[in-house]
Amino acid sequence: MMTGATAGPVDTARSPGAVLKTLDVRATTIDGGFWGERQTVNRQKALPHGLRMLETAGNLDNLRIAAGRTTGRFRGRVFMDSDVYKWLEAAAWEMLRAPSDELRSHYTVAEPGRRWTDLTHGHELYCAGHLIQAAIAYRRAIGDDLLLAIAKRYVDNIHAVFGPGRRVTADGHAEIEMALVELYRETGERRHLDLAAFFLDQRGRDRIGPNRYDSPAAYQDRVPVRDATTVEGHAVRALYLATGVADACLETGDDALLKTLTTQWEDMVERKLYLTGGVGARHLAEAFGQPYELPNDLAYSETCGAIASVMWSWRMLLATGEARYADLIERTLFNAILAGVSLDGERYFYVNPLASDGEPEHLHRGGCRRKPWHLVACCPPNVMRLLASLAHYVATRDATGLQIHQYAAARIVASGIALRMDTKYPWAGDVRLHVEAATTGPAWTLALRVPDWCTSADVRINGRSIAGPAAPGEYVRLERAWARGDVVELSLSMEPRLVEAHPRIESTRGCVAIERGPLVYCLEQADHPGAPIADLAIDTDARLESAWAPDLLGGVAVVHASGWEVDASAWRHRLYRPRGTAPRAARRPVALTAIPYCTWANREAGAMRVWIPRVEERS
Amino acid sequence: MMTGATAGPVDTARSPGAVLKTLDVRATTIDGGFWGERQTVNRQKALPHGLRMLETAGNLDNLRIAAGRTTGRFRGRVFMDSDVYKWLEAAAWEMLRAPSDELRSHYTVAEPGRRWTDLTHGHELYCAGHLIQAAIAYRRAIGDDLLLAIAKRYVDNIHAVFGPGRRVTADGHAEIEMALVELYRETGERRHLDLAAFFLDQRGRDRIGPNRYDSPAAYQDRVPVRDATTVEGHAVRALYLATGVADACLETGDDALLKTLTTQWEDMVERKLYLTGGVGARHLAEAFGQPYELPNDLAYSETCGAIASVMWSWRMLLATGEARYADLIERTLFNAILAGVSLDGERYFYVNPLASDGEPEHLHRGGCRRKPWHLVACCPPNVMRLLASLAHYVATRDATGLQIHQYAAARIVASGIALRMDTKYPWAGDVRLHVEAATTGPAWTLALRVPDWCTSADVRINGRSIAGPAAPGEYVRLERAWARGDVVELSLSMEPRLVEAHPRIESTRGCVAIERGPLVYCLEQADHPGAPIADLAIDTDARLESAWAPDLLGGVAVVHASGWEVDASAWRHRLYRPRGTAPRAARRPVALTAIPYCTWANREAGAMRVWIPRVEERS
Repeated sequence: MMTGATAGPVDTARSPGAVLKTLDVRATTIDGGFWGERQTVNRQKALPHGLRMLETAGNLDNLRIAAGRTTGRFRGRVFMDSDVYKWLEAAAWEMLRAPSDELRSHYTVAEPGRRWTDLTHGHELYCAGHLIQAAIAYRRAIGDDLLLAIAKRYVDNIHAVFGPGRRVTADGHAEIEMALVELYRETGERRHLDLAAFFLDQRGRDRIGPNRYDSPAAYQDRVPVRDATTVEGHAVRALYLATGVADACLETGDDALLKTLTTQWEDMVERKLYLTGGVGARHLAEAFGQPYELPNDLAYSETCGAIASVMWSWRMLLATGEARYADLIERTLFNAILAGVSLDGERYFYVNPLASDGEPEHLHRGGCRRKPWHLVACCPPNVMRLLASLAHYVATRDATGLQIHQYAAARIVASGIALRMDTKYPWAGDVRLHVEAATTGPAWTLALRVPDWCTSADVRINGRSIAGPAAPGEYVRLERAWARGDVVELSLSMEPRLVEAHPRIESTRGCVAIERGPLVYCLEQADHPGAPIADLAIDTDARLESAWAPDLLGGVAVVHASGWEVDASAWRHRLYRPRGTAPRAARRPVALTAIPYCTWANREAGAMRVWIPRVEERS
Repeated sequence: MMTGATAGPVDTARSPGAVLKTLDVRATTIDGGFWGERQTVNRQKALPHGLRMLETAGNLDNLRIAAGRTTGRFRGRVFMDSDVYKWLEAAAWEMLRAPSDELRSHYTVAEPGRRWTDLTHGHELYCAGHLIQAAIAYRRAIGDDLLLAIAKRYVDNIHAVFGPGRRVTADGHAEIEMALVELYRETGERRHLDLAAFFLDQRGRDRIGPNRYDSPAAYQDRVPVRDATTVEGHAVRALYLATGVADACLETGDDALLKTLTTQWEDMVERKLYLTGGVGARHLAEAFGQPYELPNDLAYSETCGAIASVMWSWRMLLATGEARYADLIERTLFNAILAGVSLDGERYFYVNPLASDGEPEHLHRGGCRRKPWHLVACCPPNVMRLLASLAHYVATRDATGLQIHQYAAARIVASGIALRMDTKYPWAGDVRLHVEAATTGPAWTLALRVPDWCTSADVRINGRSIAGPAAPGEYVRLERAWARGDVVELSLSMEPRLVEAHPRIESTRGCVAIERGPLVYCLEQADHPGAPIADLAIDTDARLESAWAPDLLGGVAVVHASGWEVDASAWRHRLYRPRGTAPRAARRPVALTAIPYCTWANREAGAMRVWIPRVEERS
């Protein structure tokens, strides 16, 4: 079906600004382990579930009505077609992984007709962007050009309407920009890149129009993209825009713009990031907060915001080759994003708090129960398409060789070798790379990321330790004339650890969190039947012990710690009291059991907390 | 001008459910000291400023247009007439304090014509309530019935439209209920009380209609008022409603309803109250948060919410005689409310955070600079009318005698005596009560509130200490055949103290606050030029010292403490780090100077914080 080189969601094979080149779409295959299991659930449970939900919610009927295939009233929000495109994109990447008559038939049924290209409702260009991405996915994944032909006609219409001398504006919700750049990469037609650059350039010039928050900052219209030094406003919009800017940098090699973008990324990571990788602290306007404004129970941390962060960081990684971007991708994938979907693939969080009082649902606050679908259902199909295309983010190549950014059970065929990667990551820290086939040739470099959280990493080639330190947050670069049968063993220390937060963050003061490997941990009420976890404190001097719990949550490594229950009853009738006037609250020792944050809310409804107060004064 | 007994804003002289009776409108006169100065600023600066703002913002022109006196387009929000009524009410109470031709002439100019009684825009009944309250104020304060005659015609119209068998609904924003009860008190017409009860009874029966938050809880329509055990949703609406319910209880003696209302009050005080007395934690929907959801920098704590809390607690005090209500009134007046207005009376906060990063203005977060007026200007005239009528809240009477609830330089003429109260409260804790005149008669009881924060109070009568403890949070009851020349000296300890918060509050963990007397203190950047106050910590073992600063902020008692500056620069490029891996942050000792929270933001723009981290590990 397919011929010639093609790429995954992003193709930097010919991008002048790309330090790293993306691999061929079939180069990396995840075929087991942690992510393999997640992909299986995604394919077997989440995608069929998503299709049922798109049918129930009216997304598909809306398209059928638009195409004249049926009659009836439009339902839901005007941008609901974008959810269909994201689902279609997920299906395309899944069909790359393995053929599926079922997914294929739905593609035909759901195929959008051209008539709704005339719709001029809100988010029109946002929706067009998702259509373009889905269409490119079908072409790259299974060589099917049907949707791309439709998308191209739509894009012709967009070119006719928008641009210099025509309508000079941009969509309130960025997305079209990255899609147009990818269409340029796919077709080689420069006008798509130019139009993307045109849309990017409209920001900060009062051309987007007023928004409901009376603030240009809310929709990234306060300053031109070249002058923006912070991430601000609606988090998903902000990071979709940043992703589009990064795509433009990759194609133009615009170093000044990339530098500005790096400043924005650092603003996010140094001042506005949850430990989980989640972004967008505020429910109000779904926005980034001010620096250090990172409440736990009130966190918004939309699943789509975390996905957008991965999309942005991936392009920054491709543009620079710097490990810090891959580190953030790892943190965000394993924590903020995975927490967005249930273990069975059929329930989704839109909001991902870092603490919960155990109420299943709240008004204007995250609850502890995922929903089958949402009124605005951007998150579920966004998770689906990311998981379906996850292999894309594992490895890249450059002139020196191959880079492994993420560890998963996978096979990589690129740079003249076939590489087998075996690992139980993130449960275990051992990664074994076996060269199954190699063309004879000169030495080249295999680069392996040592995660920033890992203070002790060991690398062996064919059983012999290599000299020199493997520094956290950098790549170990192994130069060698690689030959069939070579084995590289990377060993990352998986000792659980306590993490503390910047003292300017109000919500984490006096607290620590538990991490192990790339996973953030949390306490869940189900593991602490004797005491409300809101009243638990941790002994930071006691030892953390991890243990494999095969029957818990599908099999997870738990972390055991020691702590106390603080007796809050002495406070019952007061919120405040003079210090030193009350008897010290009685405490009893409690064994704490932490589970991976990404697996919370998969049992009965109950409280959860990532940050745990330190015991300061022992009785 | 006036004849016969009349009352201040609330009249429980004949209320069957009132344990305490309000005094005659002229019984208490504040004539100096802390509150006297505030009232002077309110009269001389705030009211003229408010009138200019009402003219500039279009509130007055809107009424002139409605009355046919001028032409033009309505400006602003449809409920802006309520701001005029609140200003008029403030002017009425000020004219009680002293005649003013200027205030009187504005009253005539601004007098609303009857024609706009036909307006059916949103908040119609809310606006009617404020008109009624203003009209009653004119009658009670200066014996002028003009506005009351207009209000009565309006109310006749409301009776014709709403009620059993007519329109069965209520206003989305409670206010009419308390106004109708007061109109019943003023006129004796039972139908006004019945209509108030009717409106109260509509809640929780799906008759208010949908709101923008898709939540009946947001506008107190989730459950009937008799079933409500929590305060929830929009804070001002919730507490205006609770005030109306309390008014109904006072007139009906409905003990079951009062018990329910007490449960709601306890929910507020035990779980949803800021240290300042502020309420309504959330910007989103201007709502109460969940229990213990009390962020500092993100606090909404609307000035009107605090005023509503005082209105509610005042009626609870009148219904029960319990000191805890007077305690909360004091805390709220001195802190949450006074912080809402600048020392010069011409600038106002709508949002009152307990911490600020020093930005003058934020989107969806409180800034550190008050504004001359607001787009929705409910708060400024609400402060004005409360300050103008503050004497009303000082004292009450019952069958046993007289109760002093709030301490101020004032003269009280009631229960057959004339009492001179001299005090520098809240700067000093000495209150001297001098019986200037008394009719001879049997013994009766003078009750003095010992504030809940005061652990050491001393009472002397004519120089002799009385036996028995004066317990905090209770009234000292002094029974005696009071005679001219008797002197009571109450001495309240004013030692500054550290306060800690319930461990379930996320934002105050590991922190203490400073209080002195009824005042909550804060650190302001202006007093700490050497270090960002975000990086300061307090030594809780060191002694607090207060000192009078005559030239600071119009004269305030400051509190000196000792602390450290935490070196945050070691964190510069990280938000999170493994515990124990970083060198301990260098610290240098810093002298801390705390000022009363109610005086913050009266100098250059700068950061502020009420809660200060404790130093836990000294280097």
